[in-house]
Amino acid sequence: MSKVVCFGEIMGRLCPPGYKKVIQATGFDLTFAGGEANVAVSLANYGLSPSFVSKLPDNDMGLLVKKTLKSYDVNVDDVVIGGERLGMYYVEKGASQRPSKVIYDRKYSAISMAETKDFNWDHILKDAEWFHVTGITPALSDECVDITREALKHCKEKGITVSCDLNYRKNLWSQEKAQSVMSEFMAYVDVCIANEEDAEKVLGISAKDTDITAGEINHDGYIEVAKEIQEKYGCKKVAITLRESYSASVNGWSAMLFTDNQAYFSTKYDIQLVDRVGGGDSFVGGLLYALLRIDDPKEQIEFAVAASCLKHTIEGDFNQVSISDVQTLMEGDGSGRVQR
Amino acid sequence: MSKVVCFGEIMGRLCPPGYKKVIQATGFDLTFAGGEANVAVSLANYGLSPSFVSKLPDNDMGLLVKKTLKSYDVNVDDVVIGGERLGMYYVEKGASQRPSKVIYDRKYSAISMAETKDFNWDHILKDAEWFHVTGITPALSDECVDITREALKHCKEKGITVSCDLNYRKNLWSQEKAQSVMSEFMAYVDVCIANEEDAEKVLGISAKDTDITAGEINHDGYIEVAKEIQEKYGCKKVAITLRESYSASVNGWSAMLFTDNQAYFSTKYDIQLVDRVGGGDSFVGGLLYALLRIDDPKEQIEFAVAASCLKHTIEGDFNQVSISDVQTLMEGDGSGRVQR
Amino acid sequence: MSKVVCFGEIMGRLCPPGYKKVIQATGFDLTFAGGEANVAVSLANYGLSPSFVSKLPDNDMGLLVKKTLKSYDVNVDDVVIGGERLGMYYVEKGASQRPSKVIYDRKYSAISMAETKDFNWDHILKDAEWFHVTGITPALSDECVDITREALKHCKEKGITVSCDLNYRKNLWSQEKAQSVMSEFMAYVDVCIANEEDAEKVLGISAKDTDITAGEINHDGYIEVAKEIQEKYGCKKVAITLRESYSASVNGWSAMLFTDNQAYFSTKYDIQLVDRVGGGDSFVGGLLYALLRIDDPKEQIEFAVAASCLKHTIEGDFNQVSISDVQTLMEGDGSGRVQR
Amino acid sequence: MSKVVCFGEIMGRLCPPGYKKVIQATGFDLTFAGGEANVAVSLANYGLSPSFVSKLPDNDMGLLVKKTLKSYDVNVDDVVIGGERLGMYYVEKGASQRPSKVIYDRKYSAISMAETKDFNWDHILKDAEWFHVTGITPALSDECVDITREALKHCKEKGITVSCDLNYRKNLWSQEKAQSVMSEFMAYVDVCIANEEDAEKVLGISAKDTDITAGEINHDGYIEVAKEIQEKYGCKKVAITLRESYSASVNGWSAMLFTDNQAYFSTKYDIQLVDRVGGGDSFVGGLLYALLRIDDPKEQIEFAVAASCLKHTIEGDFNQVSISDVQTLMEGDGSGRVQR
Amino acid sequence: MSKVVCFGEIMGRLCPPGYKKVIQATGFDLTFAGGEANVAVSLANYGLSPSFVSKLPDNDMGLLVKKTLKSYDVNVDDVVIGGERLGMYYVEKGASQRPSKVIYDRKYSAISMAETKDFNWDHILKDAEWFHVTGITPALSDECVDITREALKHCKEKGITVSCDLNYRKNLWSQEKAQSVMSEFMAYVDVCIANEEDAEKVLGISAKDTDITAGEINHDGYIEVAKEIQEKYGCKKVAITLRESYSASVNGWSAMLFTDNQAYFSTKYDIQLVDRVGGGDSFVGGLLYALLRIDDPKEQIEFAVAASCLKHTIEGDFNQVSISDVQTLMEGDGSGRVQR
Amino acid sequence: MSKVVCFGEIMGRLCPPGYKKVIQATGFDLTFAGGEANVAVSLANYGLSPSFVSKLPDNDMGLLVKKTLKSYDVNVDDVVIGGERLGMYYVEKGASQRPSKVIYDRKYSAISMAETKDFNWDHILKDAEWFHVTGITPALSDECVDITREALKHCKEKGITVSCDLNYRKNLWSQEKAQSVMSEFMAYVDVCIANEEDAEKVLGISAKDTDITAGEINHDGYIEVAKEIQEKYGCKKVAITLRESYSASVNGWSAMLFTDNQAYFSTKYDIQLVDRVGGGDSFVGGLLYALLRIDDPKEQIEFAVAASCLKHTIEGDFNQVSISDVQTLMEGDGSGRVQR
Repeated sequence: MSKVVCFGEIMGRLCPPGYKKVIQATGFDLTFAGGEANVAVSLANYGLSPSFVSKLPDNDMGLLVKKTLKSYDVNVDDVVIGGERLGMYYVEKGASQRPSKVIYDRKYSAISMAETKDFNWDHILKDAEWFHVTGITPALSDECVDITREALKHCKEKGITVSCDLNYRKNLWSQEKAQSVMSEFMAYVDVCIANEEDAEKVLGISAKDTDITAGEINHDGYIEVAKEIQEKYGCKKVAITLRESYSASVNGWSAMLFTDNQAYFSTKYDIQLVDRVGGGDSFVGGLLYALLRIDDPKEQIEFAVAASCLKHTIEGDFNQVSISDVQTLMEGDGSGRVQR
Repeated sequence: MSKVVCFGEIMGRLCPPGYKKVIQATGFDLTFAGGEANVAVSLANYGLSPSFVSKLPDNDMGLLVKKTLKSYDVNVDDVVIGGERLGMYYVEKGASQRPSKVIYDRKYSAISMAETKDFNWDHILKDAEWFHVTGITPALSDECVDITREALKHCKEKGITVSCDLNYRKNLWSQEKAQSVMSEFMAYVDVCIANEEDAEKVLGISAKDTDITAGEINHDGYIEVAKEIQEKYGCKKVAITLRESYSASVNGWSAMLFTDNQAYFSTKYDIQLVDRVGGGDSFVGGLLYALLRIDDPKEQIEFAVAASCLKHTIEGDFNQVSISDVQTLMEGDGSGRVQR
Repeated sequence: MSKVVCFGEIMGRLCPPGYKKVIQATGFDLTFAGGEANVAVSLANYGLSPSFVSKLPDNDMGLLVKKTLKSYDVNVDDVVIGGERLGMYYVEKGASQRPSKVIYDRKYSAISMAETKDFNWDHILKDAEWFHVTGITPALSDECVDITREALKHCKEKGITVSCDLNYRKNLWSQEKAQSVMSEFMAYVDVCIANEEDAEKVLGISAKDTDITAGEINHDGYIEVAKEIQEKYGCKKVAITLRESYSASVNGWSAMLFTDNQAYFSTKYDIQLVDRVGGGDSFVGGLLYALLRIDDPKEQIEFAVAASCLKHTIEGDFNQVSISDVQTLMEGDGSGRVQR
Repeated sequence: MSKVVCFGEIMGRLCPPGYKKVIQATGFDLTFAGGEANVAVSLANYGLSPSFVSKLPDNDMGLLVKKTLKSYDVNVDDVVIGGERLGMYYVEKGASQRPSKVIYDRKYSAISMAETKDFNWDHILKDAEWFHVTGITPALSDECVDITREALKHCKEKGITVSCDLNYRKNLWSQEKAQSVMSEFMAYVDVCIANEEDAEKVLGISAKDTDITAGEINHDGYIEVAKEIQEKYGCKKVAITLRESYSASVNGWSAMLFTDNQAYFSTKYDIQLVDRVGGGDSFVGGLLYALLRIDDPKEQIEFAVAASCLKHTIEGDFNQVSISDVQTLMEGDGSGRVQR
Repeated sequence: MSKVVCFGEIMGRLCPPGYKKVIQATGFDLTFAGGEANVAVSLANYGLSPSFVSKLPDNDMGLLVKKTLKSYDVNVDDVVIGGERLGMYYVEKGASQRPSKVIYDRKYSAISMAETKDFNWDHILKDAEWFHVTGITPALSDECVDITREALKHCKEKGITVSCDLNYRKNLWSQEKAQSVMSEFMAYVDVCIANEEDAEKVLGISAKDTDITAGEINHDGYIEVAKEIQEKYGCKKVAITLRESYSASVNGWSAMLFTDNQAYFSTKYDIQLVDRVGGGDSFVGGLLYALLRIDDPKEQIEFAVAASCLKHTIEGDFNQVSISDVQTLMEGDGSGRVQR
Repeated sequence: MSKVVCFGEIMGRLCPPGYKKVIQATGFDLTFAGGEANVAVSLANYGLSPSFVSKLPDNDMGLLVKKTLKSYDVNVDDVVIGGERLGMYYVEKGASQRPSKVIYDRKYSAISMAETKDFNWDHILKDAEWFHVTGITPALSDECVDITREALKHCKEKGITVSCDLNYRKNLWSQEKAQSVMSEFMAYVDVCIANEEDAEKVLGISAKDTDITAGEINHDGYIEVAKEIQEKYGCKKVAITLRESYSASVNGWSAMLFTDNQAYFSTKYDIQLVDRVGGGDSFVGGLLYALLRIDDPKEQIEFAVAASCLKHTIEGDFNQVSISDVQTLMEGDGSGRVQR
């Protein structure tokens, strides 16, 4: 029963049905999502004990968030109630050459306006084995920078492992601001996760000779990036997801884990996408589970990639697969034959 | 072609389907609504030339608001684009003893954070015959108080008739604040509209011997209220809607128009409610049309009440009826016999 | 196994979901309906052997009509295939003071443009015991007048009982045209069914002292109407439905059967309406069954009224109740207690 | 934090949307429901600590039941996994004279085929303050009679208060069988709940001069029934719900609590029904809360009736109201005025 | 008018909309399906006279099954009414690497608990030309083994052609049990249909050098399998479907017909799947039609494969295509150009 | 503000949800569409000033068409009200080898029965810069031939540029009739648009060595076609769309613009189709914009093809993309990466 504390924002996610665009909407499907909450749900699905920490408004939407997380066995006892609103975002599903589109309405959310005094980290982190945060959380506000810093310091004191998904969001802060804050925070991070763009935008470290729009992946370049991150910030493990976006309908998906000065590249899956949003978080969910419960680094990265490959075929940000679903794919059965 | 300028906020309205509560929601129907926008739509349906003035964010939700209003022939050329978000609200439909419930997420909306310099009233009010605003608009922010004051002053200068629906919103401001602001504004108002509660809460003028929760209406009391408003603020006409809320499923609905020192009470309709939200605004829409196009005060109030009676049977805040639909009901046919 | 031949039009019925108006529609629920087809479905539900005769276009909508009727055990072997289109109509559900509204798009339908040579009545009426038609069918076109006349003549020759629901449709023909055609046809009719308005509009025979919009029913007046119909045209039985339209949400519903110089009035039901369209046809369906299978006239009219009372609570034109459902209500249990 | 153990069956509930009948269904809305589970959800909503005990199959439907209950804060740690299937039932919503209809497909469900060895009552009842069961549970099978008996005996030993809702289900067992089993179990019951029919069918004790189909309620008769139950079986409190089924659309609803040799009758509510199924269980949920947290017997029965009045306006079996929602109604505001 | 008797189970099929998993379901689309019923519907679509024989419960779900089959022109006169429940199953649609998943809830269904005395085969098989059954039917229960045996014996006596789709279901019986029963039954079978796995699991006969998960097809191996089946059991024709499951979104699909000591391989279609479940049955439907109405074996197998290729693009188990739709594809037009 | 007049029919478009066929329909999604209306919507999206001219019935469906077009900023002031019905059509979405299918119900529509006197072209074309029509409009009726001829003559007189999309519809007229009418009209056409089939069927000019069903495109052949059209009819520009229909799920899409004796071939996009109907019209919309606002012919054809590529991924006939969406794709980013 490994307690993992995930701290960040969770938002209402409003999607027009099917492939309708927001401008055509007459209604929305409602789910909930957020970088750290998505990870927490994955961890609960794999039998760990995640606790999600955030601030939620004192209204029915806040209650519905808690009700939803509880249904997935995510502990919400340390969620703070207050503030003015739940952040929301709209997702329209792309297809072929038309990209999916995310429209945020997250400003002034309860968590973005939270204060350091809202969170008692001594209490929250009690018995915790692991702490997970993304680069989105400090990007929400200066207060969130302070709250995150406090949490990280407590982790260090208590010897709690820290993972951080860099997750750059250009709408929330500039690269300069991001680099300044995240460079400081990296000192606390044991496991650093990034996608093809994050390392460059958040840490200023880029893979050479890779054109992500063209979908070319340069393995050596990413090894260099990981090495540089490790050397510069001293984190033990660096994981990088490698998305090849052929179109909004089909993506290539793989990842690298760099640990003990060795790079492990996973199988690459070509995926016909059902819902791509939340794909990266499901990778982190798989990776954290694997780091806690699987020994072999190659298997760790294979678990994380297989888990997140499956998420791309599932509606909503939350991954809905079990350990055995992931293992079936890891063992090579991606044939999609009907299970009866 | 009477140009009527309506100024205020329009929000996205999210309703769970049927009688589901927000806490049970897995999706929402999307419409748009707002006190003054609802009036504008009514006026367009009756063939007048409403212009809706507000501030909307520069994203697909803002575009969708404009697209929707244009579909109803409401002019949106003077809508200002900018700000951070579109205000939203959730409505769950009540039934029987369970009240309908409105949860606002309107704070920090583009219009609430607008500035006086956003609106060029000289230009906006050009050729306007009428200006309509509600007590909601100044309640949004101090800037909105200033913007509204400026608009009212321009109206006075240009000799434009001003109507104001008091519409007290306790979540937006205190009774003290409301009374202080609205007392000042009443000096500019030619036509004052209120419901059973507003006069008391916004102007501190109350009908004696009426218990609205019990659903008893004291006609004489309301005449007194109207008289007092007229005397105190000098507005030419006062209209008061009289809702008898037997339950969330059935309401009594009538109104009084006080003009030329005479009170005209309308027919009372007992209504099986389909969607009660926006009912009061549809009364205003009917009343403004009637004041502009019908001579007889008794007929004016009958038109306004019949129009809004029908709105209570229609989904969404916007009324969807034509002049001839209203006339059929005014002439006494509320039998609901199938029209073929 | 009484074979009953029903001849007329069946249309696609498009309804916006819930209480939405057509002007608000973004989609429609699809069912099928028509005066005689609705009767045929009722008869099949009660275990008789109805055959529905019409002309349907040679496309998937025509096939879907046949597929639907077959699912209800209505024989469609004598439906003629050809012509250009399936008639359609839109229904928006009213509530309270807002009437339900039917918008027809039935012109140029296959049946309305059928020719006499399309139908071989000798073959169609073989083994038939009963023939049912409404005043809608001859109203479709002059050819339909001729086709109907031919059918009626064959019935007379073969001694087949003929029932006719007068069913005046003002969009299809004038009162003059209707009276001219239907007066001729009445000579062939054994059982004449009418609502409060039809007798006056189709036959020029009216109940005195009844104001249908006000919802007052004058029993003696209707007895006079029935007597006059019987005397003038010699039909054996006259049934008149008596709708008291309090509103689009609640109706009073009862009926009278006049036979052997005696009037039998049914119980009156006050009905909270789910779907009022097709209510009259479900009365005819119940009546035809009752005339064929029940001896006592009072019980006959009670069966017909109870059957159609239930239809008003069912979505779509087709009644969906069994003999035992009707009997439960006839025996006085309208309490709506949950059946487990 | 009063731990209340609820033991029984929970089923998948499949409803065609709106007023469609099952015979018209092309799809179903899915919720979950069961006599004791419904009570558990109510208790959690009021802040108590219910634990639901049952047996669920080892498949995704079993998991979905647990996920759902957890979302409501109902503890499911003592649910046994195994058996072959989840019981299901179909509900079609009635209206006016057409009754709602429940079609069960619950036979061979996991709980109905459970064995006594599946449940370790010593462990399950640890720290429990209250145990709740209905007459449905022993009706499921002879094994369920044995399991229930064992639970009741443990309660007696541990001094746990026992409540039992008689809830006669004619499809599950005969009156004879019911009376034989339930008479024995009544010896363990502290709080006995019944509706108008149960006492007669399960215990053979009937209210004189009351015709439930006609909707007449004879207060004295029910006092007699309660007294007789108390005297015969020694239970401390008897609560009887009094439903007046005017139609499938409108019901009268009140109740009596008999305690300390005194009868307390509640306010009667006339309810426009949204979803009547689960109404009785929501009464029990309210009553158990009230008995545990409110002192005055009159207030206890008022809380229980107001809580369940509101449930009749809510979709699904689970009540969705808070203590403060109930209090608002108890304090007399059933006006249904919009809450903003 | 070739009468074909199809005997087996038909179930309710519940699917969450779109790509939702069962664990995410808040509702289901309802269709009906079963190995032999799917074949019967195909045959009716091609103008043959199928009769479906089974046992269905005496409730609205049983009625709805019959109503549905009648809509497709499948004769249900010999369906026996009784037993306790309709079998149900849940299907969640897979995508890419995530397999579709079928969860059965078919135990204790009416047909699985039927007895030999329920079916009068002399009567049922009167005038029949063909009898079709699958390996699922005897797998339901020992009684179903006996009923099937009886049917087969009557076929032999009457000279009715028998086709059997081996269709192994591991949840229903073991390979040992299957082999023991089916080996006996094969003596009655004229046309044996199998997929890549069935022959091995049901008859113990396997294609060498073929790895179905890897999607490799070894033509020679399947010829060997067909030959061995023919030699061992004496059936005249063996048809084997060859699915190459590249993913849950794209499959290769072809088949072989072995007859008169000659193997005919069809065109292979690469299919973008809409709904894969029921694909094999639609092959059998096409094959039976082709064997009855087309002479050339190559054309027979092409018809069957083209028919079932199209079914994979259609929602629900039932194929919905006409002979001419199949012929268009057989003639090489799989271009999907819009038909106007 | 270039005023572009588009003249033709607009119809209601009814689609079963998802991949359901019409024969499976229980409801339809409603949108509106028509060759020239689709172009008008595109032009409005790109900021031009389209006016749509047609005839619409005087009922709610006619009103809903106008409401919809106004929402897109298409001017409908010159729409004539009258006639009997709105044309309708049904679309079922194909997949893989199963083609999409369009079933028309457009006969006797208001526009098809319009008369020349309905349209005052002098007024309508005032200030117009461009006139667009398709080959569908004159195919509707002989009156429509006359009305179109009159419009074209006015254009010539006023020096208005004329574009015409040949758009052959075999259900509306024969190739002979089409060639006779369109040959005459081509004299007025400045910009001629055709797909692979139109030139042959409407003008009798065909590309050699191209088999459209096989999906092979012969570039030289299309240059010949364009040259021949230009020489024969003197139009300044010829644009030909080149669809390679691999399946109903994936199409190749490109086009050629022939101008100043030079052919410009666009990029070819392989598209995973969401909704293919209206694809050609969105090309015309993009082309007209490009001809009016972009100078370089290569860029013109690239804009038109990129715009229409995106439309194939959008639900409904109307394109929903902005200039900047098109430019992003033109600049090479078809990677479909999520836009945040």
